[in-house]
Amino acid sequence: MRQIKHPAIEQVELTDIMYALSDPARMEIVGRLAQAGRQMTCGELDLNRPKSSMSHHFKILRAAGLVETVIDGKEHLNSLRLAEIEQKFPGVLYAVLKTIKLP
Amino acid sequence: MRQIKHPAIEQVELTDIMYALSDPARMEIVGRLAQAGRQMTCGELDLNRPKSSMSHHFKILRAAGLVETVIDGKEHLNSLRLAEIEQKFPGVLYAVLKTIKLP
Repeated sequence: MRQIKHPAIEQVELTDIMYALSDPARMEIVGRLAQAGRQMTCGELDLNRPKSSMSHHFKILRAAGLVETVIDGKEHLNSLRLAEIEQKFPGVLYAVLKTIKLP
Repeated sequence: MRQIKHPAIEQVELTDIMYALSDPARMEIVGRLAQAGRQMTCGELDLNRPKSSMSHHFKILRAAGLVETVIDGKEHLNSLRLAEIEQKFPGVLYAVLKTIKLP
């Protein structure tokens, strides 16, 4: 199975998390992953945007340490790194998630 | 006295706040204003960066609704819109502020 690289939580900076959350599409992905509380495929998280645009958003979410993606056959399974982020930056992501109104 | 325009709190979007906090210099300005708990001049908040760079950062902080600037003679007095932001997005800014380590 091909692996996708993710930053260790020690390398994650709050400014990168803030940047990742500065886009409505990425905010929605994070909100939907939090609401589901499980791994979701890219298809499930499709926001009716071009595939290249969604790939870009997932790349930024992974680089910021917010999302972990594992490859399972033809599927990309995405999950929120909520527990790790919460431990490093207590309360930040939970407070943000409370404000998200999903469409 | 010349006035500087600020968005009403109703117009403030969380994604704009996240973007404003995605830069270490702007994060530091916000942290210092919160720590001081009073109006501060641009001189007091100088981060040893070019004046044009600082102006740019203050412009983004104002546009995001985080900072209010009033002009008093030759001084620009800046303050954090903490109470308004807290009311609209409870807990977000406080959680972020707790993580800021000022130099």
